[in-house]
Amino acid sequence: MPARNAFYAQSGGVTAVINASACGVIETARKRKDKIGKVYAGRNGIIGALAEELIDTSRETAKAIAALRFTPAGAFGSCRYKLKPPEESRREYERLIEVFRAHDIGYFFYNGGGDSADTCYKVSQLSQTMGYPVQAIHVPKTVDNDLPITDCCPGFGSVAKYVAVSTREASFDVASMAKTSTKVFIVEVMGRHAGWIAAAGGMASSEETAIPIVILFPEVVFEEQKFLAAVEAKVKKHGYCTVVVSEGTKGADGKFLADQGLKDAFGHAQLGGVAPVVAGIVKRGLDLKYHWAVADYLQRAARHIASGTDVEQAYATGKAAVELALKGHNSVMPTIERVSDAPYRWKIGVAPLSKVANVEKMMPRGFITADGFGITEKCRAYLAPLIKGEDYPPYKDGLPQYVRLKNAAVPKKLPAFEL
Amino acid sequence: MPARNAFYAQSGGVTAVINASACGVIETARKRKDKIGKVYAGRNGIIGALAEELIDTSRETAKAIAALRFTPAGAFGSCRYKLKPPEESRREYERLIEVFRAHDIGYFFYNGGGDSADTCYKVSQLSQTMGYPVQAIHVPKTVDNDLPITDCCPGFGSVAKYVAVSTREASFDVASMAKTSTKVFIVEVMGRHAGWIAAAGGMASSEETAIPIVILFPEVVFEEQKFLAAVEAKVKKHGYCTVVVSEGTKGADGKFLADQGLKDAFGHAQLGGVAPVVAGIVKRGLDLKYHWAVADYLQRAARHIASGTDVEQAYATGKAAVELALKGHNSVMPTIERVSDAPYRWKIGVAPLSKVANVEKMMPRGFITADGFGITEKCRAYLAPLIKGEDYPPYKDGLPQYVRLKNAAVPKKLPAFEL
Repeated sequence: MPARNAFYAQSGGVTAVINASACGVIETARKRKDKIGKVYAGRNGIIGALAEELIDTSRETAKAIAALRFTPAGAFGSCRYKLKPPEESRREYERLIEVFRAHDIGYFFYNGGGDSADTCYKVSQLSQTMGYPVQAIHVPKTVDNDLPITDCCPGFGSVAKYVAVSTREASFDVASMAKTSTKVFIVEVMGRHAGWIAAAGGMASSEETAIPIVILFPEVVFEEQKFLAAVEAKVKKHGYCTVVVSEGTKGADGKFLADQGLKDAFGHAQLGGVAPVVAGIVKRGLDLKYHWAVADYLQRAARHIASGTDVEQAYATGKAAVELALKGHNSVMPTIERVSDAPYRWKIGVAPLSKVANVEKMMPRGFITADGFGITEKCRAYLAPLIKGEDYPPYKDGLPQYVRLKNAAVPKKLPAFEL
Repeated sequence: MPARNAFYAQSGGVTAVINASACGVIETARKRKDKIGKVYAGRNGIIGALAEELIDTSRETAKAIAALRFTPAGAFGSCRYKLKPPEESRREYERLIEVFRAHDIGYFFYNGGGDSADTCYKVSQLSQTMGYPVQAIHVPKTVDNDLPITDCCPGFGSVAKYVAVSTREASFDVASMAKTSTKVFIVEVMGRHAGWIAAAGGMASSEETAIPIVILFPEVVFEEQKFLAAVEAKVKKHGYCTVVVSEGTKGADGKFLADQGLKDAFGHAQLGGVAPVVAGIVKRGLDLKYHWAVADYLQRAARHIASGTDVEQAYATGKAAVELALKGHNSVMPTIERVSDAPYRWKIGVAPLSKVANVEKMMPRGFITADGFGITEKCRAYLAPLIKGEDYPPYKDGLPQYVRLKNAAVPKKLPAFEL
């Protein structure tokens, strides 16, 4: 049987290391030309498959593919596009299979979070019933760290490291200004549903640095008076306080704290972040001088301060996805299995997609301190190895030398498809 | 004559490399014990001198002092406290001289921006007329890069590198999401009066990366329609656009764009940044999906991505300050003199404080493109060497090993002084 081609696509919000997974997929596939023909990438994720906009990765040099390992964001483009359930939109799945058939694609590697695990699962199932079976393997990726079964998710360790390092640095800054200026610094981090990223802010403090930090988790209902008391106590003791607030922090009414119906002088609605809202609460409640930052995309794109562990695991899961496919696996996701904390040891495991799809992993309550504002030793033991190791990109003229691929199009063979 | 002691203080907003200057001062002084006794640091800047809260840096190990070179923020504490003009508050200057006399301080090293250059100048003059002459040397420091005479200011190169790197990374992120999600990314950077830091955002783009960037400078009056047209054109051509906005951007009415009288649902005033304001303008004017970030302290504290040039120059100016003092100079500031652009060569010069104090250096108009939204080749040639070189701090357990000094107090000899 001649080697069939593979399809790879990036899905959802990109990360500092999703391209490292792409690198793992492509480099591993290139070594197995006997089994895998070309790797086609979807231009802008799964949309590329539906629109038959395929990228021929075989047109890229080995050097360019190797550079994906240290290039952040999605080199082929990603998308926020969720396929509807097959019973609602069977035509999308039929189109996928039609495109796969037209381009002799036998392997489907989908690199994303919970939603795309679900899509990957459905593609695997439907391809069987439609008489064109493809092996569908999901490659885990999400800064939110909320996929089940796997110990952690590629993408998370790097954003965690960024948040821990930045929180440490900004806290040193505030500590030196607090006497006459800023006493409370608020940094907003990602995490709509789970507080994993906010938890990483807690790692900024160590025995040596002893930084006073108050963390606001989406898992803990925000109580203004309790929060103000916690900040005030830290300012009294240390002279300053750093607040790490998750964008997903909610009040007792279940509404996002960020959602305060802000209006400017002309009555225009302003989409504010949660950091300025918390700053306002500090100002009104304690009348302390504050500064605030919103890290937004800077945090998840920060390849310059990526975690060595994370880069390695992102590559390893990409590589494992291809190896699993070659071993005949289908409808699975390679996972990270933690073998031990200290020394940190891990290995690649495998999880059936039926158990991954649509399950969100929250922070265990045992990872959050009793007062709801900090992380426990158990949480530190979990996070510590994930932010370990520096994996610097190469620099030219003071800037990281991230690669831009040629992204040459595969000639289309089918009529257009309306998305 | 026995060696007299030195006083060193950090002033105003801290930077990623102000401690590298402290390191240069202290290490150089330690080598000249014949001329300089102990180096006393002001706890929380000049306030430490007024309150006679001196730190005995001789109690720190050589290793701890060496670690200042890679530790951000102000290791002895800084302050925002401007001495009044002598005619208004002669008692402050008298107190300074009294403290200097009590602790046999003959050298005054003041590490700060324009305001502190002015203070340093006055201390030098008044110490003469008060009959206790001290040699006052100003060590340049400001992320704003607005000191005159010197080619650049220690602190600026590192924040410029941070902004250039982060803008490049976030732009890669947006480029990969733009098909179905964010099309305009807005990042707010520092610079109330001068657009040097915003200009650094322009360095994110190069021939290879070709990132569409619109910069909003404080030097250029904001015109909404012109801005929207520039963003729209870039989105049309590239699919996305990155906006780097200086916090000091002003409208035709001369008011900060950030100052929009924001109110939350309860009518509370919100101190917003300029990034969400620009996001609102983009939303209303173009109806494009956006994300925004406010880097705030993260940018100036980011020692993890400091510029090698900047670290070297920060150390060199600290070292030069001591050497100038030992050569008998007074009332001067060591400067960076650019000898050539490519290859970049620089040397230490010297400027009289009378010409430094209270002069702000704005971006030359020739550094901003004709449309007001970009940087010229001339500007790139100026900025390029300043962000060059990586100078990574050591890491332990995934986090930079920044030093916390003992900061042992020098016993007081004088009655208390009311600030």
